[in-house]
Amino acid sequence: MTANSRIWTAALIVIGDEILSGRTHDKNIAQVASWLQVQGIRLHEVRVVSDDMDAIAEAVNILRARNDYLFTTGGIGPTHDDITVDAVAGALEVPVVVHPEARAILEKHYETRGGLTEARLRMARVPEGADLIPNRMSGAPGIHVGNIFLMAGVPHITAGMLDALTGTLEGGAPLISETIGCWVAESEVADILREVEKAHPGCQIGSYPFFREGQVGANFVIRTTEKAELQSAVDTLCDALGTAGHDFTPGGI
Amino acid sequence: MTANSRIWTAALIVIGDEILSGRTHDKNIAQVASWLQVQGIRLHEVRVVSDDMDAIAEAVNILRARNDYLFTTGGIGPTHDDITVDAVAGALEVPVVVHPEARAILEKHYETRGGLTEARLRMARVPEGADLIPNRMSGAPGIHVGNIFLMAGVPHITAGMLDALTGTLEGGAPLISETIGCWVAESEVADILREVEKAHPGCQIGSYPFFREGQVGANFVIRTTEKAELQSAVDTLCDALGTAGHDFTPGGI
Repeated sequence: MTANSRIWTAALIVIGDEILSGRTHDKNIAQVASWLQVQGIRLHEVRVVSDDMDAIAEAVNILRARNDYLFTTGGIGPTHDDITVDAVAGALEVPVVVHPEARAILEKHYETRGGLTEARLRMARVPEGADLIPNRMSGAPGIHVGNIFLMAGVPHITAGMLDALTGTLEGGAPLISETIGCWVAESEVADILREVEKAHPGCQIGSYPFFREGQVGANFVIRTTEKAELQSAVDTLCDALGTAGHDFTPGGI
Repeated sequence: MTANSRIWTAALIVIGDEILSGRTHDKNIAQVASWLQVQGIRLHEVRVVSDDMDAIAEAVNILRARNDYLFTTGGIGPTHDDITVDAVAGALEVPVVVHPEARAILEKHYETRGGLTEARLRMARVPEGADLIPNRMSGAPGIHVGNIFLMAGVPHITAGMLDALTGTLEGGAPLISETIGCWVAESEVADILREVEKAHPGCQIGSYPFFREGQVGANFVIRTTEKAELQSAVDTLCDALGTAGHDFTPGGI
């Protein structure tokens, strides 16, 4: 196995009753997924769990063991429902401690904002042994402990933390993809898709139907880590669609 | 325990590589969550898994056992990457069979659309013992087997299937909620929120910070099944915020 063929995986735990109640539409799954692709890391599984110590700890222990990296979003703020740090420390069986650098960051951030209260000091608490993830958007940093990265739930703060982590994680070859769109019911070309995928073992082909302007269509997405293999699969699929009499749109519809 | 105090729970499995790659932004978590609230059922956990038999089957067996209901979205179409039916049948250890009514629905649907091909017939396959969930948007029905409901991944088709299920599932008292918005850093009122929640054991209070127009604010959402308890918690929270000198906006910001 070459360095490039090792597949690096990650899992994500989205923490928060507001997602499970439908009140808040999650934006972090897509943003973490897209960011991981660029790092050469595959998002393998996502769980959305409630603000519950046991639920978080269970997910943490299962997912950190079977992935190279585990990310969490949500539950690291100053209020009583922010329990991610305690749940992760519990899962790791380490105590929660105040991180001196986090405390200094918060002291500075709140200097002109009413000072560092006990509630705000909660955001300096980390599982013992943790480093910080810089937060350029607001005061409280994210937390890195072992292979776990605890990030904020507010999407633009999460984005800043991901940005700070860019290029710092070891990954494999990034997954590359090409999309081919076609105004056809996917059921009409199911055999073609299956055959092209079978002929290109390094590629996965996904079929994503849509209904627009009263017409059915589908986008076919070919994913692989190998550039030559991708081009070959694209060519084979376009040939097969053309031969079967279907117009197709490289790049997708 | 009265009939009303029994809490009914559901889990959701979102199936599809397109969500995990970041290509498609999931809309089904929020729509299933909101629909369940109205049915008096709490969404307890969500998992997003790839188009992989073992990953789907593992999630199905864990989540169907520990919830009253399990919903899935995605992977019930006609193409090679649509493997939800096979994975669920595998998890239940029952064979996959062609459902005669589903076959008849598809025959009729495709009568004027090129006929029922082998690929299209895949959408009539169900785990043995299953019923159908009507699909008024497109041909292929959803599938109900045991406490599991397999639905389409395309959000407007999912919506139609949820609509068909409305009122058919036993649930408890719906969770009701009130939101109070405040232009304040949540860290300033963390103690108030904790105290109000502690004084109202039937209520959960969530705090959802935001940054808008250069200002920080937060919405506080109180959730409970008891109307009187909700009003009492709202009154207590508003009093406490007012006493502490914070303007608040009933209904949220």
